[in-house]
Amino acid sequence: MEEGFAAYSAGKAVVPPVGHLGFKQPPGDIHIKYGYIEGNDYYVVKIASSFYDNPKQGLPSSNGSMLIFNQKTGELKAVLLDEGYLTDIRTALAGALAARYLAPKHVECIGVIGTGVQARFQVEYLKDIIGCRKLYVYGRSLANLEHYAADMQKFGYDVTTTTNAAEVAQNSNFIITTTPSTHPIINVSDVKPGTHITAMGSDAKGKQELDPLILQRADILVVDSLSQCKEYGETSHALEQDLINASKPIELGNLRTNDVRRVNDSQVTVADLTGVAVQDIEIAKIVYAAALEAQPET
Amino acid sequence: MEEGFAAYSAGKAVVPPVGHLGFKQPPGDIHIKYGYIEGNDYYVVKIASSFYDNPKQGLPSSNGSMLIFNQKTGELKAVLLDEGYLTDIRTALAGALAARYLAPKHVECIGVIGTGVQARFQVEYLKDIIGCRKLYVYGRSLANLEHYAADMQKFGYDVTTTTNAAEVAQNSNFIITTTPSTHPIINVSDVKPGTHITAMGSDAKGKQELDPLILQRADILVVDSLSQCKEYGETSHALEQDLINASKPIELGNLRTNDVRRVNDSQVTVADLTGVAVQDIEIAKIVYAAALEAQPET
Repeated sequence: MEEGFAAYSAGKAVVPPVGHLGFKQPPGDIHIKYGYIEGNDYYVVKIASSFYDNPKQGLPSSNGSMLIFNQKTGELKAVLLDEGYLTDIRTALAGALAARYLAPKHVECIGVIGTGVQARFQVEYLKDIIGCRKLYVYGRSLANLEHYAADMQKFGYDVTTTTNAAEVAQNSNFIITTTPSTHPIINVSDVKPGTHITAMGSDAKGKQELDPLILQRADILVVDSLSQCKEYGETSHALEQDLINASKPIELGNLRTNDVRRVNDSQVTVADLTGVAVQDIEIAKIVYAAALEAQPET
Repeated sequence: MEEGFAAYSAGKAVVPPVGHLGFKQPPGDIHIKYGYIEGNDYYVVKIASSFYDNPKQGLPSSNGSMLIFNQKTGELKAVLLDEGYLTDIRTALAGALAARYLAPKHVECIGVIGTGVQARFQVEYLKDIIGCRKLYVYGRSLANLEHYAADMQKFGYDVTTTTNAAEVAQNSNFIITTTPSTHPIINVSDVKPGTHITAMGSDAKGKQELDPLILQRADILVVDSLSQCKEYGETSHALEQDLINASKPIELGNLRTNDVRRVNDSQVTVADLTGVAVQDIEIAKIVYAAALEAQPET
């Protein structure tokens, strides 16, 4: 995944604009993300859908498949019927990658904003990077908070729940925000020195989870895609309000090359993740390679 | 297929701009066409590729698959691994549909420009619409002409071959042009009164098979998509040179509604077909319905 981001930031990934198809009755959206990394064996097309009335029928609202093609001949090699699962994983992996560079040396408590799928996956994929087993989680629904706490306790976490987001920031120095919120949930005044925040909920215009002053305050601001984060994501709000300079954000794929990392325990760092097709390419490659190994190509 | 075109022309089809991905080494292009007809059960995504060096490895340059999704839930219902075959058929079906409205009552000879896949499919799908079994075919390669003639003779056609395209026009009153030419192959002076021409080779910018004066001369000019034919196709060239008015072309999907058809045997008619996603939607639906009938959905 890190190599994929590096290839993207080095301009070696070809990732056209996302295709979109909208539905009114019932309401739905599909997004087609596709692209390739130069010199790779494959190109990947991901078709992801959200049909918002699905839960009424007991179906998940999100669905998705990835198609893997030979980059030299166009032949279809595999269809991954993952129903959106691989998108969840690749999103969590990007958070884990950001944590490798930006997490404080001593995480005293992991703060989690939201109680959904990414609130679980992000924590799960941090397990090997951050030793801390304390979670402070914010949600609006008590039932969801209870459910989340029960699930994470099974994974060995000590979980505190709250319906007051400020408490999460005041008690954590590593925070993950995972909601589809359209207004800031965390205020700059609640963020402690030495905190890292990974914000991955703002994946489309209109969404926002962080007070844009946090991005102004940040010593390091990492984004997955400069071009995307100018359009949406937390960074777009800070840029719009002239709180940061356009040269402040640095791409995740450039951290290693530019040797950027947290240098002390008072720095505030932010990773603003909007999701890029190169993540789909990488996860599809990994899964396909594993499938080939399990059952040799015929 | 006719209903699909009618839905498209009535504004009931949602067909976003075609997605494109280009490759340099080896050279290739993929196109993603997708959309749906309002009120239908499914939406369709077609991924078609052309890898121009494939024939060196004994592989066809074109390939493609169609994916069929539930329009109400986003669930993937089927992947049609047709390798481009269904695109060939739906293209030929559009030609056959145009022939139903525009073919002269007495076709004395069918002229064919080109010796490739569509030069065969278009003729095959005309069999039930046009009784004539005489073909006059133009090609640049004698070997390809000979191969084409042998194949079509098996289907009961009397075939004359030529490397002079003018001869085809001079001896036929129903002409199909099927090449990727970038300059006119048929001149207006060679077109006889009463001739119908279906031009389906110009499916991208820069391509052209007909002298644009033929479109000026035409009594009826039919296009599959007004918006596309303004961008490319034969019509775009005639419009650019101010040889026709933008109100002249009429969409294939409006022929029945507007009761447009050939009324006498001196009219010149042209069908300019560039290919629209609604054709993919229709052919995928037909094939999927047949597959379900053969093996009930589980």
